[in-house]
Amino acid sequence: MDLPVVGMVGGGQLSRMTHQAAIALGLSLRVLADTGHDSAALVANNVVFGSHTSKEDLLAFAEGCEVVTFDHEHVPGDLIRAMEEAGHTVLPSSAALLHAQDKLVMREKLAALGVPVPPFASITSREDLEGFGAEHGWPLVLKAATGGYDGKGVWIVDSAEEAAPVLGSGVRLLAEQKVPLQRELAAVVARSPYGQAAAWPVVETVQSRGICVEVVAPAPGLSDDLAVEAQGLALRLAQELGVVGVLAVELFETADGILVNELAMRPHNSGHWTIEGARTSQFEQHVRAVLDYPLGTTTLTAPVVVMANLLGGDGDPELDERLHLLFAHDPSLKVHLYGKEVRPGRKIGHVTALGDDLDPTRARAQAGAHYLRTGQWLTPANEAPK
Amino acid sequence: MDLPVVGMVGGGQLSRMTHQAAIALGLSLRVLADTGHDSAALVANNVVFGSHTSKEDLLAFAEGCEVVTFDHEHVPGDLIRAMEEAGHTVLPSSAALLHAQDKLVMREKLAALGVPVPPFASITSREDLEGFGAEHGWPLVLKAATGGYDGKGVWIVDSAEEAAPVLGSGVRLLAEQKVPLQRELAAVVARSPYGQAAAWPVVETVQSRGICVEVVAPAPGLSDDLAVEAQGLALRLAQELGVVGVLAVELFETADGILVNELAMRPHNSGHWTIEGARTSQFEQHVRAVLDYPLGTTTLTAPVVVMANLLGGDGDPELDERLHLLFAHDPSLKVHLYGKEVRPGRKIGHVTALGDDLDPTRARAQAGAHYLRTGQWLTPANEAPK
Repeated sequence: MDLPVVGMVGGGQLSRMTHQAAIALGLSLRVLADTGHDSAALVANNVVFGSHTSKEDLLAFAEGCEVVTFDHEHVPGDLIRAMEEAGHTVLPSSAALLHAQDKLVMREKLAALGVPVPPFASITSREDLEGFGAEHGWPLVLKAATGGYDGKGVWIVDSAEEAAPVLGSGVRLLAEQKVPLQRELAAVVARSPYGQAAAWPVVETVQSRGICVEVVAPAPGLSDDLAVEAQGLALRLAQELGVVGVLAVELFETADGILVNELAMRPHNSGHWTIEGARTSQFEQHVRAVLDYPLGTTTLTAPVVVMANLLGGDGDPELDERLHLLFAHDPSLKVHLYGKEVRPGRKIGHVTALGDDLDPTRARAQAGAHYLRTGQWLTPANEAPK
Repeated sequence: MDLPVVGMVGGGQLSRMTHQAAIALGLSLRVLADTGHDSAALVANNVVFGSHTSKEDLLAFAEGCEVVTFDHEHVPGDLIRAMEEAGHTVLPSSAALLHAQDKLVMREKLAALGVPVPPFASITSREDLEGFGAEHGWPLVLKAATGGYDGKGVWIVDSAEEAAPVLGSGVRLLAEQKVPLQRELAAVVARSPYGQAAAWPVVETVQSRGICVEVVAPAPGLSDDLAVEAQGLALRLAQELGVVGVLAVELFETADGILVNELAMRPHNSGHWTIEGARTSQFEQHVRAVLDYPLGTTTLTAPVVVMANLLGGDGDPELDERLHLLFAHDPSLKVHLYGKEVRPGRKIGHVTALGDDLDPTRARAQAGAHYLRTGQWLTPANEAPK
């Protein structure tokens, strides 16, 4: 059977779950991994070891791939262009991906498109920052234009004084107004080279210390108008930016409407719930999109789907024993473990609960993740903050 | 993360799909495969090459596995016992698995348990066969006691004369009455060493030339009484025979009730629909069972689920192009390809349709499998036989 080879740069959990989905399509993902301990390297057959910052490694990896795609945004743009110039199909393209790699480029492009974004400015000096603060208020959000993830590269600062170490670090920076948000949402869509696009329902994402801890699908109490606006915005951005594959648009919901926070052009934490919660998962959809297969149905499989991230705890996790007890406690909970070494705060897996009603479904997902992390059942006394 | 190693002997599609499910549990299946072209060897990281008929290969494979299990019944019993005697955990055990390996042992055991089976007898001579035919009528079913699958090792014979070549072949044989069946059903359950058991709804299986071509869940029009009887029978057999893992009980529905046809102690073709059609798939359940994890919920995810096997056609399948067109035609159909070389009649994949109503759901599954095999859309003129 002569089916195409899809190469994914990066061996993290996104690559791992993409491989899992690709198996059904008759494929075996080719993974560029750093080491054999990478999440995807543990489970895929076609693993190439190399660095995503080495042009030589990337070019060798791309050889024989029908398409090369990514599980993160950290491949330098000039190296992606080198693959493209060597004749390889790379999706999303370097031109599209730039908007997920460089927050300043993204902000300027979205502003030019008339897409609602928080007030922002490029910051190259203390004077720039003081001027921005005087206009938009303190505290404000200072961000590294490139390289951040999971809250890294983002600082909430009360004064230019406090920002001095970051300002002096040589990192390209932008400042944003600290928007008075009501909650965070995400609109996840996929787009194929042919131009077909498909959207999943808009979800609510809950962050703790800059890391996503919970996703609720569909976003509870979201008005139809806002839901349609958010989906339309994501579909429009996918087209305007020429995205191929999954595009996750992270949004702030404010009293005045929605604003775009971040973009990701790959399967995204806010779409993990789709594995069991939608007829086509974001991982299958990403593979279908980059291969220019027609996209799959995004219908939900239950009225409410809640995903809770499993973050590494402090102690020995005894995951195997906890898994036994959790499965006994809740035989309907779906568990996904990434095969990673446990480190405090690291995303090592997620759990998904499906149900008819929001509160009990949410409670099951939270209880499952909390128990796997701590070995304790949630009680009113130690309940996760709402 | 120190999670257990599950070893599966055999690198076919059952092993491939078990690996796919095991990934979510943080595992990477260790597969004993014949060659790198085996379905599971194409997608798993931990592949050991060797023969399932070599004691040395099996013992080396089992080393370091928390548990060894199987994707087929063809490992000789004495070699399974050799693994057990070397201290390895093998599930199902050699004692249980014997009943899926030897049809004569199975028939005798089930008859002794009072389980309804077709009239049968061990056949060692032409006289035995003539006597059985005189009592139970011609044509009758002659079966090799061991080694058959997908209709191989089963002969419908009209006379002892016709059976002469088989009778003279030295194969251990049994004869069975050719039961006037209304249809075939399957009751699939799983059982853990702890003794927990879980049943999926009873399904109807449709065979063509001895090969399963379609499975409908739940079995249309099955009375509650018969459904409960079939599930109860499968659960009882799992316990009486000491099965651990998935047990598929193939059944004949006759005017007088149900009879047991065959047993399989592994994920089974009649359970492929559970991947999308049940909250816990048979592949995840098998892994949970052999690791003695509590079992998962078997609830359906849609009122009707239909799986159609994709059998290799005669010509060049051009599967990639057909997949494009099929996905465009039916974005809700779920496709599973096994990565196998296409040969006429070989199971190379399956498709699953989920829906609210039997007829349209069944039509979608049939149309999908037919199109992938032939490149033709089903029309009234070339519709699959009912």
